[in-house]
Amino acid sequence: MPGPDAVGKSGPHHPRRPTMVDVAREAGVALRTVSRVVNGDTTVGEDFAERVRSAVDRLGYQPDERARQLRSGRTGAIGAAVRHIADAHPVLRAIDETARAVGLTVVAMSTEDDEERERDAVMSMCRRRMDGIIIEPIAQDHHYLQPEIDAGLPVVAFDRPAAGLDVDTVLSDNRGGIAQAFAHLTAQGHRRIGYIGDDERIHTGRERATAFRDALSGIGGTLDGMVHPGPVEPARVAAALAALRDRPDPATALVTGNFNTTVAVIRALGADFGGIALVGFDDFGLADLLRPGVTVVAQGDEEIGRTAIELLSARRANRARPTRTVIVSTRLIPRGSGESAP
Amino acid sequence: MPGPDAVGKSGPHHPRRPTMVDVAREAGVALRTVSRVVNGDTTVGEDFAERVRSAVDRLGYQPDERARQLRSGRTGAIGAAVRHIADAHPVLRAIDETARAVGLTVVAMSTEDDEERERDAVMSMCRRRMDGIIIEPIAQDHHYLQPEIDAGLPVVAFDRPAAGLDVDTVLSDNRGGIAQAFAHLTAQGHRRIGYIGDDERIHTGRERATAFRDALSGIGGTLDGMVHPGPVEPARVAAALAALRDRPDPATALVTGNFNTTVAVIRALGADFGGIALVGFDDFGLADLLRPGVTVVAQGDEEIGRTAIELLSARRANRARPTRTVIVSTRLIPRGSGESAP
Repeated sequence: MPGPDAVGKSGPHHPRRPTMVDVAREAGVALRTVSRVVNGDTTVGEDFAERVRSAVDRLGYQPDERARQLRSGRTGAIGAAVRHIADAHPVLRAIDETARAVGLTVVAMSTEDDEERERDAVMSMCRRRMDGIIIEPIAQDHHYLQPEIDAGLPVVAFDRPAAGLDVDTVLSDNRGGIAQAFAHLTAQGHRRIGYIGDDERIHTGRERATAFRDALSGIGGTLDGMVHPGPVEPARVAAALAALRDRPDPATALVTGNFNTTVAVIRALGADFGGIALVGFDDFGLADLLRPGVTVVAQGDEEIGRTAIELLSARRANRARPTRTVIVSTRLIPRGSGESAP
Repeated sequence: MPGPDAVGKSGPHHPRRPTMVDVAREAGVALRTVSRVVNGDTTVGEDFAERVRSAVDRLGYQPDERARQLRSGRTGAIGAAVRHIADAHPVLRAIDETARAVGLTVVAMSTEDDEERERDAVMSMCRRRMDGIIIEPIAQDHHYLQPEIDAGLPVVAFDRPAAGLDVDTVLSDNRGGIAQAFAHLTAQGHRRIGYIGDDERIHTGRERATAFRDALSGIGGTLDGMVHPGPVEPARVAAALAALRDRPDPATALVTGNFNTTVAVIRALGADFGGIALVGFDDFGLADLLRPGVTVVAQGDEEIGRTAIELLSARRANRARPTRTVIVSTRLIPRGSGESAP
């Protein structure tokens, strides 16, 4: 849209360049009707279109080329439906940066771990004619997106599969990451290793708890009372921690299944993390500033975000392409909390 | 849009309820044309509208009431153009939560502190017919939004004023917050207090540095070499810190002007924060877990977010209402780093 600060040449009645608002006023039609005519939408009724065209001529309205290019969709927008838009989200950062590099802008909405909100957010993006949707899926059933996909909407899921849909997907190597954390602790001599993580109804929570059980069984350890999946609430996490420590053979080391659990555990452990060895799944910004520094299994956030955009771009180029699931590997970062012997 | 999993009654050709996609196919028109006709847009050409209506009749298509309500705009969407969508953003959280409570959903875009991106993001939201826009302004000139405001778009600025626009605005009490931090340190006996903060070209950076100079002058302190505004880069922050400590009368206490500066200073200070007293402007999630805990001036993030939505709602209800600027007070939270004597 032309800036009103640009000085026009058409005399005192138009001290600034005429805008679409001026055209709408002159033609006596809605602003969106002007927008549609100016952008070549042929389904506008001929009487309305003619009124707009003659108002454009009378005012000497000239669409701003840059705005026009944006409106025409050559710079596209993709919707990202993520769990919490207000939380730090390194995958979203990578999505945003990679998207810009290929001429797309990212519009984010929050699902707040709520199926209804996810559906609202995603359908709202569909109504706003996004050029594609990237989703961090919550719902147990994503059939609601099938008509949009059938109509050509590119959709990519990340972090979790989109249940009920056959779409391109990027996942972390959850099982491999837990195996890395576990092997790191056994290498220091730990055998009684506990796990506190997310609810197993969540895909990542299930994958990580399962991988932990496999690892513990693999060294002949007892599973009994050592694996604590559940909601990430400080009281539940503190109770799980107490159960792991107040047993005849207390856990000497701990794997936490996600960032919020890691923080809740550190708060409950207090100074020097109570002498227990700790490896957290998922890295976080200030992990190196805590004492001890927090050893983590870092997810490949950048790689996940970049891959999501690559899959989306490939899908836009070829809607008939077979869908693909990409698993991105994790990386253990030792910082102190996971390097002590039992 | 009806779910494809719902079983229809119209025989083997329609094992699921017909969708708008089916109507579009049957009518031989674009999906968006069907959407416009179904939603009562009267500017669609009559021949197209008639084809859609008869396809609707033939297929027995029934719009899903809930989707229809969403499409009709009764559940509106507001755009939030914030500096970094991928960073933790407690004001955005409050905006999101308050918006939902009044039946609005929030769509966020990142401006990345770049004027061009801000304009792209905001104009992209305008094209997507948001019911209002909340902006954390970057640009030095927001005249580009004036035609949209003239056309009735409600706009609210937060954190910084939107230069060149007369819009509802919510700001932190930056000057009051710096005065609180300063008074807290003088109460412990500090007199040689340094400041490291954001670039003064940014509104908040300028307000905070100015307030700090006023406070230091107020106790008869020398300003010479004690106030270090500038870009938030670790090397620049470390150099400013070195300058404050390597002087004949080294600073015994420090006020940092924003979260990123606080973290850069803590990294540079190392163990026990090098014995220097520290108060940071802006609270952060793990401030209580560092040793010492970090004393901060917390901004009223929730209040700012809630107020932004309230101002937007009031503006939607009455476009002619005089604009208002709301200043939200700050609160000092002592946690250890700011309570030591010189």
